[in-house]
Amino acid sequence: SRFAYVKKFELPDALLPSTFMVFRLDGHSFHRFSDEHRFVKPNDLRALELMDHAAITLMQEYKDISLAFGESDEYSFLLRKSTALYNRRQSKIVSTLTSLFTSSYVFHWPKYFPDVPLRYPPSFDGRIVLYPSQQEVRDYFAWRQADTHINNLYNTAFWALVQQGGQTTTEAHATLKGTVSKEKHEILFSRFEINYDKIDARYRKGSILVRVETPEEPAPESSNTPTPNVKSTEPLDETLKAKKKKAKNATKVELLHTDIIRDSFWEKYSYLLKD
Amino acid sequence: SRFAYVKKFELPDALLPSTFMVFRLDGHSFHRFSDEHRFVKPNDLRALELMDHAAITLMQEYKDISLAFGESDEYSFLLRKSTALYNRRQSKIVSTLTSLFTSSYVFHWPKYFPDVPLRYPPSFDGRIVLYPSQQEVRDYFAWRQADTHINNLYNTAFWALVQQGGQTTTEAHATLKGTVSKEKHEILFSRFEINYDKIDARYRKGSILVRVETPEEPAPESSNTPTPNVKSTEPLDETLKAKKKKAKNATKVELLHTDIIRDSFWEKYSYLLKD
Amino acid sequence: SRFAYVKKFELPDALLPSTFMVFRLDGHSFHRFSDEHRFVKPNDLRALELMDHAAITLMQEYKDISLAFGESDEYSFLLRKSTALYNRRQSKIVSTLTSLFTSSYVFHWPKYFPDVPLRYPPSFDGRIVLYPSQQEVRDYFAWRQADTHINNLYNTAFWALVQQGGQTTTEAHATLKGTVSKEKHEILFSRFEINYDKIDARYRKGSILVRVETPEEPAPESSNTPTPNVKSTEPLDETLKAKKKKAKNATKVELLHTDIIRDSFWEKYSYLLKD
Amino acid sequence: SRFAYVKKFELPDALLPSTFMVFRLDGHSFHRFSDEHRFVKPNDLRALELMDHAAITLMQEYKDISLAFGESDEYSFLLRKSTALYNRRQSKIVSTLTSLFTSSYVFHWPKYFPDVPLRYPPSFDGRIVLYPSQQEVRDYFAWRQADTHINNLYNTAFWALVQQGGQTTTEAHATLKGTVSKEKHEILFSRFEINYDKIDARYRKGSILVRVETPEEPAPESSNTPTPNVKSTEPLDETLKAKKKKAKNATKVELLHTDIIRDSFWEKYSYLLKD
Ligand SMILES: Nc1nc2c(ncn2[C@H]2C[C@H](O)[C@@H](COP(=O)(O)OP(=O)(O)OP(=O)(O)O)O2)c(=O)[nH]1
Ligand SMILES: Nc1nc2c(ncn2[C@H]2C[C@H](O)[C@@H](COP(=O)(O)OP(=O)(O)OP(=O)(O)O)O2)c(=O)[nH]1
Ligand SMILES: Nc1nc2c(ncn2[C@H]2C[C@H](O)[C@@H](COP(=O)(O)OP(=O)(O)OP(=O)(O)O)O2)c(=O)[nH]1
Ligand SMILES: Nc1nc2c(ncn2[C@H]2C[C@H](O)[C@@H](COP(=O)(O)OP(=O)(O)OP(=O)(O)O)O2)c(=O)[nH]1
Ligand SMILES: O=P(O)(O)OP(=O)(O)OP(=O)(O)O
Ligand SMILES: O=P(O)(O)OP(=O)(O)OP(=O)(O)O
Ligand SMILES: O=P(O)(O)OP(=O)(O)OP(=O)(O)O
Ligand SMILES: O=P(O)(O)OP(=O)(O)OP(=O)(O)O
Ligand SMILES: [Mg+2]
Ligand SMILES: [Mg+2]
Ligand SMILES: [Mg+2]
Ligand SMILES: [Mg+2]
Ligand SMILES: [Mg+2]
Ligand SMILES: [Mg+2]
Ligand SMILES: [Mg+2]
Ligand SMILES: [Mg+2]
Ligand SMILES: [Mg+2]
Ligand SMILES: [Mg+2]
Ligand SMILES: [Mg+2]
Ligand SMILES: [Mg+2]
Repeated sequence: SRFAYVKKFELPDALLPSTFMVFRLDGHSFHRFSDEHRFVKPNDLRALELMDHAAITLMQEYKDISLAFGESDEYSFLLRKSTALYNRRQSKIVSTLTSLFTSSYVFHWPKYFPDVPLRYPPSFDGRIVLYPSQQEVRDYFAWRQADTHINNLYNTAFWALVQQGGQTTTEAHATLKGTVSKEKHEILFSRFEINYDKIDARYRKGSILVRVETPEEPAPESSNTPTPNVKSTEPLDETLKAKKKKAKNATKVELLHTDIIRDSFWEKYSYLLKD
Repeated sequence: SRFAYVKKFELPDALLPSTFMVFRLDGHSFHRFSDEHRFVKPNDLRALELMDHAAITLMQEYKDISLAFGESDEYSFLLRKSTALYNRRQSKIVSTLTSLFTSSYVFHWPKYFPDVPLRYPPSFDGRIVLYPSQQEVRDYFAWRQADTHINNLYNTAFWALVQQGGQTTTEAHATLKGTVSKEKHEILFSRFEINYDKIDARYRKGSILVRVETPEEPAPESSNTPTPNVKSTEPLDETLKAKKKKAKNATKVELLHTDIIRDSFWEKYSYLLKD
Repeated sequence: SRFAYVKKFELPDALLPSTFMVFRLDGHSFHRFSDEHRFVKPNDLRALELMDHAAITLMQEYKDISLAFGESDEYSFLLRKSTALYNRRQSKIVSTLTSLFTSSYVFHWPKYFPDVPLRYPPSFDGRIVLYPSQQEVRDYFAWRQADTHINNLYNTAFWALVQQGGQTTTEAHATLKGTVSKEKHEILFSRFEINYDKIDARYRKGSILVRVETPEEPAPESSNTPTPNVKSTEPLDETLKAKKKKAKNATKVELLHTDIIRDSFWEKYSYLLKD
Repeated sequence: SRFAYVKKFELPDALLPSTFMVFRLDGHSFHRFSDEHRFVKPNDLRALELMDHAAITLMQEYKDISLAFGESDEYSFLLRKSTALYNRRQSKIVSTLTSLFTSSYVFHWPKYFPDVPLRYPPSFDGRIVLYPSQQEVRDYFAWRQADTHINNLYNTAFWALVQQGGQTTTEAHATLKGTVSKEKHEILFSRFEINYDKIDARYRKGSILVRVETPEEPAPESSNTPTPNVKSTEPLDETLKAKKKKAKNATKVELLHTDIIRDSFWEKYSYLLKD
């Protein structure tokens, strides 16, 4: 039609070839969303497992995602550097991946919050950052896990002071102001007999999702559940499972809570950074 | 931390100031999604009203959206040219708006498909196109509505041939191949006594959402329901309503099914293109 | 060849259609260049006329340039909003126009500085800024001319204090520090009997180049000299003239030194902003 | 001033950090420029040495350029991947480098074409392409040298057929149409006793400029002449030499005509790809 010329204003936005893409999303105003849905403080296992589930949905749908790391209301995904996903179009990738994560989050909410109905639709922002080399990719994920450690140590001490120490949030904030890491460990141990290093690794290390090759014969369904360590073997979305077995080669996504700053992880999973 | 340098790889992506933004999203593989959820062909009122509801959610949350147009599995939103939303950052806007639309779509699904449980999480792509002048914005929306007309005429004839004419989809395709608009009208009228122009405007014109100023005293709640013509006065999301009355000035979103190619609409709603 | 894949790393950079382009270039380290070539202070007529000549070269070669404005070591060029020059490729336009200006500057240097051999090759930076509307284009050129006025008033007072008032540059700087425009006029008039408004408009208003339609029969050569007000009718570059008469429709470039902030200029030359 | 808002339309264009930049420029319409200035065919030593000189000017001014390769009317420059030149701003780098090359070309023209006055100002286009890894940088330069070989073999055979074989250009074109490399060698050897491999390496391999560390005491001037193999020891630009000794650490630029496709060059000059 005579109006079709408007399509020419849509400019190409392909990303530089042969460069790692890191896609990070983050909950929009989750301070309010977590309050309105009474998230356990500092960490709500239901919320963190739902974030993991949505991330696994993304990794099952998009095979070019080799690795993911999640903490709090954010998740980061590494796409292999030679991915041709949507012809490397920036907006197409950012929007579709953010949308599928959001959809999975709302879709699976009732399984993780059976007695807390969603009060309003949550949303997430998303972005892609390009990294030319493997070292920068390692440093990116180290950056995020270092952030997890600092935030979780602070939040653990903060809420211990409030929930067990009887302090107001203002007082707890003042108590922790200017303290270094060692002092926070000291407060937790001496006042609340909490040995920080004994706290569940999920909260200290965040969630790491790695794609692992599976042996020839397809692993039994249950093993493909998005959250292997969830007691009840939760049946995967019916259609998704059918589709997975048929078309997609059998890869499994494993959930870990381990250090990804030192070398050992990257030596064990070196194939993640290869093409 | 020593890893924080990776943040510098995140390059600024602000869009050109004082330029209209059109944000368009489109369902990912909705051919399959509509099949798997047994959408009525050619048009499923439940699905189209759910799309409208998700679009209204966006317009209530983002006041810089002045106008929206939806058809099939797509929706286009006009942001006023001087918007400072997220400092006009492209990825931040594309991701967050696509995410909220998706979230609202999944969140409100059960109201529109009470007897069809969602089988898997749907997703949408999103993009922003810049238009420097009002004429190009008008031509953009005319382009989309012209597309609606052509697709809907074809689909109406196609499914009449299949559902009432007993043809296979291949035969229907062959029948319509090479026919011009008048011949499609002729087939509908002579073979199936369908006067195309009498078909509900919603299917012929698509959905137009306009922001209208409301009189001082806040309109009664019910009138703020996202889909005025939905029989049951569906209570707006509890928290959203509270928030709307408090912070945001009272504006209402009106749903229309009218021509937006000729001048009359744009003369009546000329303020939509002003700043 | 097996190496040809590297061409794919060259990403498209077309600029938004139907949007005004302003191309501005500026001399690289001309503080040093003007010192090393003993430019007259504050304004060197030879240097300013050479800048005009290089700008006219650009306007004769690129017919999509409708208007230009120059001062000091910078020149700004307006390209009509629907130009398809080099398919609106940003780097192709910025590099080629900056290159031709530089080439013309060095090529014509001896005509304007017959007794000052170039000591080293000068260079210029270049950039394109997009403006969606006519008002912004007007404000851009007003911004540059306002800048000319402020700099020239300061420089005229500064060098009067130094050259006629016997002050050192530091003293002159201190004298003018914190003074407003009126006080600078006062210093010039009371101390040096210089009526600022009587100074040649070229220095107060900068150089404006406008493309004007020429009557049918081609104007005599001499009138096409890049700097009409240069006494000696300097023969245009031989080949360029031949080419101009043959292929290009006869347009002439006029050099003015007039106000481009108020409406009168834009009313007289309104066609410059039309397509 | 109230017009200063227009500066906000100038959007940041910094290039991805820690990524190799290859800056390539190419003569604008040099088919015509070489004809109008009677360049020797197929290769004009004066023109190629002038291109080398302009490239050396760039390497002396911009120390972040580690390597350059030139053929015909084009030159490619490698900037080290961590360069902070002009804060990695794309237009600032493309325009300024293209401008200095052009300026040096016109400035030094008379030395290389003493008896051929420039008829009009030549110009060049310029662009930057990003390469994330060393292998892609190697393949880029291999791509250009492979191009040099193919073009030079064709041009050498073509002009031999015309200048010595008495063919018209059309006949020469027809003779060479569809021939493979071996057949071209055969034509040169059997018809014109030209052993292609004996032709000066400058024409077969193009020009390679490498930055080499110089021993402590500054090398004698003459050795710093941009074109070491130009008979007359041409004094470097007066001011440039003074500046070079004072501020910049002593590095020398060496001109080579050697293979840069196989490994040997890159093993010898491996530091060129390091940071
Ligand atoms: N109680 C609790 N809160 C959580 C949990 N995960 C995330 N949050 C909350 C704590 C933070 O206020 C917020 C995440 O921090 P952000 O910097 O992303 O803030 P927020 O999302 O509010 O702002 P944003 O829209 O991202 O700029 O989400 C959880 O497991 N439990
Ligand atoms: N039966 C039915 N189908 C619909 C309705 N709305 C949308 N669809 C289906 C018809 C089309 O196959 C599809 C929309 O066309 P698209 O070009 O967006 O195709 P699709 O989403 O499959 O591909 P995409 O991922 O967008 O490239 O959605 C509806 O109301 N009823
Ligand atoms: N004496 C004299 N100097 C001039 C004339 N035109 C320009 N200049 C000098 C004065 C300024 O120092 C310089 C222009 O100011 P800029 O802000 O462009 O500084 P410059 O080019 O040194 O730095 P840049 O590389 O552009 O950041 O050129 C002239 O006609 N006479
Ligand atoms: N005779 C002769 N011609 C040369 C020499 N170096 C370059 N040329 C000419 C031959 C080619 O026609 C032209 C370079 O090819 P290009 O593909 O760059 O063509 P041209 O510059 O005309 O077009 P362009 O503006 O770059 O798209 O320059 C030389 O040393 N001798
Ligand atoms: O999300 P981050 O970590 O980049 O930082 P922020 O302060 O949340 O800013 P934004 O999300 O708007 O980029
Ligand atoms: O969505 P459109 O209309 O731009 O066109 P398409 O063929 O769906 O292509 P894509 O969605 O990948 O841009
Ligand atoms: O040239 P301008 O006016 O944009 O400002 P600047 O201070 O010279 O900065 P740059 O030339 O580096 O943009
Ligand atoms: O210069 P190239 O090799 O990229 O290719 P071209 O055909 O000259 O095209 P352009 O110079 O316009 O990119
Ligand atoms: Mg954020
Ligand atoms: Mg958040
Ligand atoms: Mg967060
Ligand atoms: Mg599409
Ligand atoms: Mg679709
Ligand atoms: Mg669609
Ligand atoms: Mg500048
Ligand atoms: Mg300057
Ligand atoms: Mg300047
Ligand atoms: Mg080219
Ligand atoms: Mg060329
Ligand atoms: Mg070339």
